[in-house]
Amino acid sequence: MPLLIELVDALTSGRVRVVDLTQPLGPETPVIGLPPQFGASPGVTMETISHFDERGPGWYWNVLHLGEHTGTHFDAPVHWITGKDLPHNACDTIPAERFVGPACVIDVTREVEADEDFLLMPEHVEAWEREHGRIPPKSWVLLRTGWSAREEPLRFLNVHEDGPHSPGFHKSTSELLARDRDVLGVGVETVGTDAGRAGTFDPPFPNHATMHGAGKFGLASLRNLDQLPPTGAILIAAPLKIVHGSGSPLRVLALVES
Amino acid sequence: MPLLIELVDALTSGRVRVVDLTQPLGPETPVIGLPPQFGASPGVTMETISHFDERGPGWYWNVLHLGEHTGTHFDAPVHWITGKDLPHNACDTIPAERFVGPACVIDVTREVEADEDFLLMPEHVEAWEREHGRIPPKSWVLLRTGWSAREEPLRFLNVHEDGPHSPGFHKSTSELLARDRDVLGVGVETVGTDAGRAGTFDPPFPNHATMHGAGKFGLASLRNLDQLPPTGAILIAAPLKIVHGSGSPLRVLALVES
Ligand SMILES: Nc1ccccc1C(=O)C(=O)O
Ligand SMILES: Nc1ccccc1C(=O)C(=O)O
Repeated sequence: MPLLIELVDALTSGRVRVVDLTQPLGPETPVIGLPPQFGASPGVTMETISHFDERGPGWYWNVLHLGEHTGTHFDAPVHWITGKDLPHNACDTIPAERFVGPACVIDVTREVEADEDFLLMPEHVEAWEREHGRIPPKSWVLLRTGWSAREEPLRFLNVHEDGPHSPGFHKSTSELLARDRDVLGVGVETVGTDAGRAGTFDPPFPNHATMHGAGKFGLASLRNLDQLPPTGAILIAAPLKIVHGSGSPLRVLALVES
Repeated sequence: MPLLIELVDALTSGRVRVVDLTQPLGPETPVIGLPPQFGASPGVTMETISHFDERGPGWYWNVLHLGEHTGTHFDAPVHWITGKDLPHNACDTIPAERFVGPACVIDVTREVEADEDFLLMPEHVEAWEREHGRIPPKSWVLLRTGWSAREEPLRFLNVHEDGPHSPGFHKSTSELLARDRDVLGVGVETVGTDAGRAGTFDPPFPNHATMHGAGKFGLASLRNLDQLPPTGAILIAAPLKIVHGSGSPLRVLALVES
């Protein structure tokens, strides 16, 4: 039997489920704050074109205004200066086969409960691999931190007097994953793929610099990572085909087999 | 072997390919025009937040402004007055399993070459079914018209003195597909899921009225339908999780097995 027929059967029977890893996208969606000398990315605003009224008696629709990197979103290599001259580096030029791939989920919820500035180190990856096997090339690595339980925007952004605090990757871990494991990219529950403190790191935002310099992607503001197995799920993460887009809000789905 | 492991292998070997059915999304993307008494949906405008400059020395990103129904897009039941009170009728409330499903592709390219106002009739569906089998419940029906070869926006929109002309569905066909075949929805290569002349039909825009009234979806401005088999492909079509969204620009992918 063709594999895709089997997949349709498995989806119908519930043996394969579709898990939504996406935040709702609207005026309440939290957005990243940067130091005031930099350009700011606006959150979502919506305007109604018609709502079963004289502007459109039979139809309802809205206009959207938002930054490319709003809510659950995709980071393309062209987003960062390290990736700006790579081939196929933008939302409209990345080959479509890269939008479907296996997911490795590393659970550090306990560590993040103890330290909101937790950074994933190469040792954590290696410990995970001793249990679950080596991270295969072209997989997503998803950092499960429990952070998405912070549904209240102020707790999610977690800005102290000295700036934002949230977990992320140590530079050496991003290097390991991008260069040695040849991942598709990394996905996180936080507002960006770098730690909250990463603007003060050397270089600033080292996960962005490393991943995008190696042609890898990012996924931020994911939810429901606790519904995924450590290995075996398939991620579907396809950005809008924005012409020369640096990133995109998107719907992220996971296929999970029981 | 778990099915999803087989699928990853098949994607890696190229036995299953990912086909992108999406138009580029940018300032050139054509948008539907309605009579002037109705609210108009704006095309895409983009504004750069920073581009490796003083606004962001290490990063490039943009703001987007666009209508929900722009470019390759999804129509949710709440888009239409007939679907406004149905449960789970908006982009943020539709169950995620509905975003992955099999595709039936009906090729009427020849008919549309002869008649730009061609309407798919129940007889065409029944003839297709005699060859390919009955359309299964919860499948997409994709109308392959060759229309997406009209890359030039004016030819794509094809507005004559009396308004737009493009192919679509007869009301009785939409009824057959929505009520009798229980499809997920219909997808088209044209700017909307109704024919160009459908604003003059009774009721106006009968495909929208019928599909959305039955809780079914629409996909418009698809491309590359000529790369799909008549049956056997799986469509991935997941709108942005817009809060009470009536529709959404999206990336539409197909999995195709060789
Ligand atoms: N960390 C950043 C610094 C500058 C610009 C964007 C970011 C993001 O996280 C993003 O890509 O969402
Ligand atoms: N036909 C229409 C009439 C009114 C509003 C929107 C449409 C669309 O086609 C759409 O949904 O893109």
